Amino acid sequence: MSKSDRIPRDKENDHSREMASQRAAFVAEVTGAKLDTVASYSIDPDVTRGNIENFVGTAQVPIGIAGPLKMAGEHAQGDFYIPMATSEGTLVASYSRGMRVISECGGARTTVVKHSMQRAPVFLFDSALEARDFGQWLRDNIDALRGVVRKAVDVPRLTEIEQYAVANMLYTRFCYTTGDAAGQNMTGKATLAACEWIRVTHPANPRYVLSGNIDTDKKHSMMNMIQTRGKRVIAEFVLKKEIARALLRVEPAALYKFRQIEGVGTMMAGAAYSGAHSANGIAAMFIATGQDVANVSESHAGVNYVELLDNGDFYWSVTLPAVICATYGGGTGLPTQRECLEMMDCYGTGKADKLAEIIAAVVLAGDVSLSSAILAHEWVSAHEAFGRNR
Amino acid sequence: MSKSDRIPRDKENDHSREMASQRAAFVAEVTGAKLDTVASYSIDPDVTRGNIENFVGTAQVPIGIAGPLKMAGEHAQGDFYIPMATSEGTLVASYSRGMRVISECGGARTTVVKHSMQRAPVFLFDSALEARDFGQWLRDNIDALRGVVRKAVDVPRLTEIEQYAVANMLYTRFCYTTGDAAGQNMTGKATLAACEWIRVTHPANPRYVLSGNIDTDKKHSMMNMIQTRGKRVIAEFVLKKEIARALLRVEPAALYKFRQIEGVGTMMAGAAYSGAHSANGIAAMFIATGQDVANVSESHAGVNYVELLDNGDFYWSVTLPAVICATYGGGTGLPTQRECLEMMDCYGTGKADKLAEIIAAVVLAGDVSLSSAILAHEWVSAHEAFGRNR
Amino acid sequence: MSKSDRIPRDKENDHSREMASQRAAFVAEVTGAKLDTVASYSIDPDVTRGNIENFVGTAQVPIGIAGPLKMAGEHAQGDFYIPMATSEGTLVASYSRGMRVISECGGARTTVVKHSMQRAPVFLFDSALEARDFGQWLRDNIDALRGVVRKAVDVPRLTEIEQYAVANMLYTRFCYTTGDAAGQNMTGKATLAACEWIRVTHPANPRYVLSGNIDTDKKHSMMNMIQTRGKRVIAEFVLKKEIARALLRVEPAALYKFRQIEGVGTMMAGAAYSGAHSANGIAAMFIATGQDVANVSESHAGVNYVELLDNGDFYWSVTLPAVICATYGGGTGLPTQRECLEMMDCYGTGKADKLAEIIAAVVLAGDVSLSSAILAHEWVSAHEAFGRNR
Amino acid sequence: MSKSDRIPRDKENDHSREMASQRAAFVAEVTGAKLDTVASYSIDPDVTRGNIENFVGTAQVPIGIAGPLKMAGEHAQGDFYIPMATSEGTLVASYSRGMRVISECGGARTTVVKHSMQRAPVFLFDSALEARDFGQWLRDNIDALRGVVRKAVDVPRLTEIEQYAVANMLYTRFCYTTGDAAGQNMTGKATLAACEWIRVTHPANPRYVLSGNIDTDKKHSMMNMIQTRGKRVIAEFVLKKEIARALLRVEPAALYKFRQIEGVGTMMAGAAYSGAHSANGIAAMFIATGQDVANVSESHAGVNYVELLDNGDFYWSVTLPAVICATYGGGTGLPTQRECLEMMDCYGTGKADKLAEIIAAVVLAGDVSLSSAILAHEWVSAHEAFGRNR
Repeated sequence: MSKSDRIPRDKENDHSREMASQRAAFVAEVTGAKLDTVASYSIDPDVTRGNIENFVGTAQVPIGIAGPLKMAGEHAQGDFYIPMATSEGTLVASYSRGMRVISECGGARTTVVKHSMQRAPVFLFDSALEARDFGQWLRDNIDALRGVVRKAVDVPRLTEIEQYAVANMLYTRFCYTTGDAAGQNMTGKATLAACEWIRVTHPANPRYVLSGNIDTDKKHSMMNMIQTRGKRVIAEFVLKKEIARALLRVEPAALYKFRQIEGVGTMMAGAAYSGAHSANGIAAMFIATGQDVANVSESHAGVNYVELLDNGDFYWSVTLPAVICATYGGGTGLPTQRECLEMMDCYGTGKADKLAEIIAAVVLAGDVSLSSAILAHEWVSAHEAFGRNR
Repeated sequence: MSKSDRIPRDKENDHSREMASQRAAFVAEVTGAKLDTVASYSIDPDVTRGNIENFVGTAQVPIGIAGPLKMAGEHAQGDFYIPMATSEGTLVASYSRGMRVISECGGARTTVVKHSMQRAPVFLFDSALEARDFGQWLRDNIDALRGVVRKAVDVPRLTEIEQYAVANMLYTRFCYTTGDAAGQNMTGKATLAACEWIRVTHPANPRYVLSGNIDTDKKHSMMNMIQTRGKRVIAEFVLKKEIARALLRVEPAALYKFRQIEGVGTMMAGAAYSGAHSANGIAAMFIATGQDVANVSESHAGVNYVELLDNGDFYWSVTLPAVICATYGGGTGLPTQRECLEMMDCYGTGKADKLAEIIAAVVLAGDVSLSSAILAHEWVSAHEAFGRNR
Repeated sequence: MSKSDRIPRDKENDHSREMASQRAAFVAEVTGAKLDTVASYSIDPDVTRGNIENFVGTAQVPIGIAGPLKMAGEHAQGDFYIPMATSEGTLVASYSRGMRVISECGGARTTVVKHSMQRAPVFLFDSALEARDFGQWLRDNIDALRGVVRKAVDVPRLTEIEQYAVANMLYTRFCYTTGDAAGQNMTGKATLAACEWIRVTHPANPRYVLSGNIDTDKKHSMMNMIQTRGKRVIAEFVLKKEIARALLRVEPAALYKFRQIEGVGTMMAGAAYSGAHSANGIAAMFIATGQDVANVSESHAGVNYVELLDNGDFYWSVTLPAVICATYGGGTGLPTQRECLEMMDCYGTGKADKLAEIIAAVVLAGDVSLSSAILAHEWVSAHEAFGRNR
Repeated sequence: MSKSDRIPRDKENDHSREMASQRAAFVAEVTGAKLDTVASYSIDPDVTRGNIENFVGTAQVPIGIAGPLKMAGEHAQGDFYIPMATSEGTLVASYSRGMRVISECGGARTTVVKHSMQRAPVFLFDSALEARDFGQWLRDNIDALRGVVRKAVDVPRLTEIEQYAVANMLYTRFCYTTGDAAGQNMTGKATLAACEWIRVTHPANPRYVLSGNIDTDKKHSMMNMIQTRGKRVIAEFVLKKEIARALLRVEPAALYKFRQIEGVGTMMAGAAYSGAHSANGIAAMFIATGQDVANVSESHAGVNYVELLDNGDFYWSVTLPAVICATYGGGTGLPTQRECLEMMDCYGTGKADKLAEIIAAVVLAGDVSLSSAILAHEWVSAHEAFGRNR
């Protein structure tokens, strides 16, 4: 790389308008592309310190307001307006329609059922037997390890160490609660401290790699589906049949049959989510609120489960086993992101479960709207779609 | 919903600063949260028409410039600077390190090996036998269906119809090429036209649902891994052992062993990607360039495959079977997004494969950097991590 | 290994009572265990030539007769008695119950929807681009390859070559029809001939491995679920509500709800079959009829799909995407195995689809019986299990 | 069903030669097929009571003796001869070759790392919150539940209750140790007792279904891969390079590269086992030793993990997370089956782990042989297959 190819940097103070301008000019020179709008940001570059390197400006992603969404959760209660950052037309409108339906049916009940963020070191031995014995030693020393973690980091608390023996290795998942942070970095630091303590303390001074890829950071996995990553959150409501007909133009009985067909397709395709489209709502909220958007990969997984009740109403739920969200740290403190959190009263400490509940309810709203649209006349042939008897 | 809860809208011209301000004021009133920075955007709201409803302003996501990344692809050739929009500190720096390594080794070879965007209608019959016969009829009428599609839409071309029989249904995937657009919407329109033609033309006038969930839109799936969705793209390079030692502080032989351990973890966890972290780079580029960010769910899937060569160098590749990206339509024309595409000369027609190649190379760069970091002293216990013989 | 450890063999004629006795005596001497019953077989050892090495006698697995099972298939029509070899008590009785239910409802409709047996060579190149070009060459030469196959083997016909590009390799699946044989060996031979022709004919003389493990021989896989291995077979019937109540003691509406719960469990667990237990019936029939029992691993995969009809009846189906069965070759000609095939008129040429249909119907019968048993009072708490409204 | 269609039964004593003959005659009459060899069994029908209904005779499956296999396990030590019941020619010979290789390298080290047999009831509530609270109640009452189980059944011991919340339900897995039995039935009985105690004791008298399909009985699943079902067993040995060359005609370095290609194929195909063919050895041993052969579906899953050591030798292992085997109960007491267990000193109490170790070592032997055969000249093009440098 010749010097002239090198992106300008200032080792003293790189997060300044001046340096951003220099970089924009550099890009213009070497690529011919002007970054005028990218460079027309209204935030102070200094606030991006710790969030970005080689700052050159901002992406301006349109935000639309959806809602209101009535929440009847444990942490989120009342009517909420939801900021969604996207460039996909109709997305905000479609989610809004779903939110209206849920709200008119009394709101979304939401429950965070498990907290578990991981780092997943793998310990290497000469034989499976040594690895198994080491597993027993880990169980015997769980309290000491909890102490090591408490000393090393402020927030994370070690809840358990899952063990998965393969060959002469012990794959583990060190599971933590992480307060209002997503916690991937702090659990990495905590686990490193724990591993070093293990290496020094255990008689075999076992070798290890800090991640054996079963955490499974930034990837969807069956492991997450089964064991949870971040927060396992459930949103549910009962769709009244009159409202289904009036607002969604569908019959609950037809919806129910349709959902079975989707479920079979999901299983045959080996898909990560059995509903219509969790990722749309999650991505739009993650961008707006400063989450780590790469976690859409994990957070979009889930189960869409419905029941046709005896009275003709329709129980509808989504279960998201890997919602990774924060109301503190990361990108949540950036100016537009913080404002979006604040409009849901979700900024700062003690708010992460509330945000997770809202996310799950939004996903539910999106599925209510899109599934119904697919089923209703817009997408399906004729009125007789499911009603014909055999 | 009382009238006072309703978000202000103007049916005539809703994409104006005036209406955005009204909505921001509304939010401030009902939630107490001020959207001052959200409302401090530098784009003309009118350009967001078709991209958003209830526009209230923009999320400003910091963009950092990574690179240069030397590309030796089919469509992307030369040095590129990569816009990455993220709030995750060290991400841009880490990807830049990987890009430098690849560049110093001669650049990333990249190949788009398949194009296939789908809509997946399911056709409903009274028996499996009727469904099977219908499948034969579909094969017999593929040319007519191609004609129907050509008439209905401008861009998409129907390449094939995959068939998956289950029970008394025929799940299908109508597969298209879609030019420089991602194409989910246009293939939906094309498939609806095809389905309606089928319903009218086939003697049984078969009922159908436009999506049986095996497309698998906005979801990771094994279907995508196997059959491709969007573009199947491969990036590869040979890491020279001297550069591995100098820039990454790792031995190729140790990297190779480490990759096997990661591969086993991936399989046991049922994870969507076998490398370190495809989603980070994809999400950052998708936000910067106006892609549908929800597609991170699909696009992050892939295979990281390596070989230790006889001369001690290291062949490294990523295969991404479901890259969904566009250089035209959707959010690509929004001001900051277009600028970011332009800095890679990736805006407009004839550029989508080029962008896909760059995305794959960026993912490769990210894995080179993070995998090495995990392996090197920062993350692993001591120098002897892998070298000790048994 | 000292000479005394070596199992006695006769290179001239090893499949004789004499050599079997010598081996039994050898085992008795070195292990102290007498193989008296193993050695009390009623078949001529000579018939096992080509089926076993180091023959010492036979396992006598109890066979029970289930049925009659009324078939309304394409190939299997009329009443059938089913031989099931198992040591699991109640299995035959439970399947018989299911067969009675199906028969009283008019019999099982069955359909073989696809034939596709594979060998899956992987071709190795220096770059992804070369691999992609080779893929095009393969498509261009499919007719020539079909000719090569026709010359090399008698039965298999090459139908298509599926391509899955990864890194600098092209994974393929050479797909065949194989008449009445399961065909793993003959397709191996056919594919070896094809690969050698390719190696000689293609300018790059590409290196290859005959199996890249995506065939996926003797393993369950999502590949099989999606693309079929062996035969894709569907069995279906309509359970009349009166018969459900009388013979199964369940309400169709409760069954329907129950099936949704099972479906969600299946998806969350990543299970290969969404019904109750396909493997029981398949294993019992495979042992009885001389199939390759290891293929239970592949053949047990499938989808159990149901619908609650408007009149209260219950459509019930199983779709098995990887039934591997033969009526000719392998173990089908062994004495007891042939007799069991003959009692279903399934021995010899032209019978494999018929056998596949019967297998699918038997799996359906087993699910009808066990699912109902789980739901009925034996397994579930009280009468109110599903009926209570919310 | 007319009376003449009904299979003859004797309610008093159905497991007699007389009744078996009557049934054979009945089959001959209605189907025209003679069951002469099926009826030529050498066991007393009375011993099949509890193993089969409508007994008509036996399937005679050829048994070949493989070995000797040197075991250096925790429970299995010394040289073993392995009974394999199959009709697949070359299977016994191929496994024997692998056993010889392992034995000459010092034998197979084997380790049972986890015991966990399940029944998986799902508890039904009106909301996710109630389900979550119930989960806490379960944790609080684990000791009481252990007591309930101890009272209800002799052998199983409740080790833990795994919880998986979905919608308004709590899916659970009640995990047990089951001594020397496979234990599916006894854990069913134990769990029914526990569930009934829960229903009576918990204030909400929760409704439940005894299996929510996540056990996942008689099916492969990712759940089993991750959480274990039956026994998680590992077999490993170090293949010396001289022996690899002499007996297998392969270079360890080539084997290593080949295994990576197989691993990638496994992941892309979503296959249950990453080695060559676990199911062959398992099915052959299961038939010979009276195991529930349907469990091949679960037991064939696993991970084949290898390392190329610095000295050129080759560490080879298989990890089987769901080996379901018994040395007591079920079909293990049938005459030929018991003899086969006895020849490995694996009949009766205290032997199940020993048998599991042998099974894992046999699987390893089969992979050693077949993988090498695929790689060696028989299956691969030319000597240069992997050695060519790039």
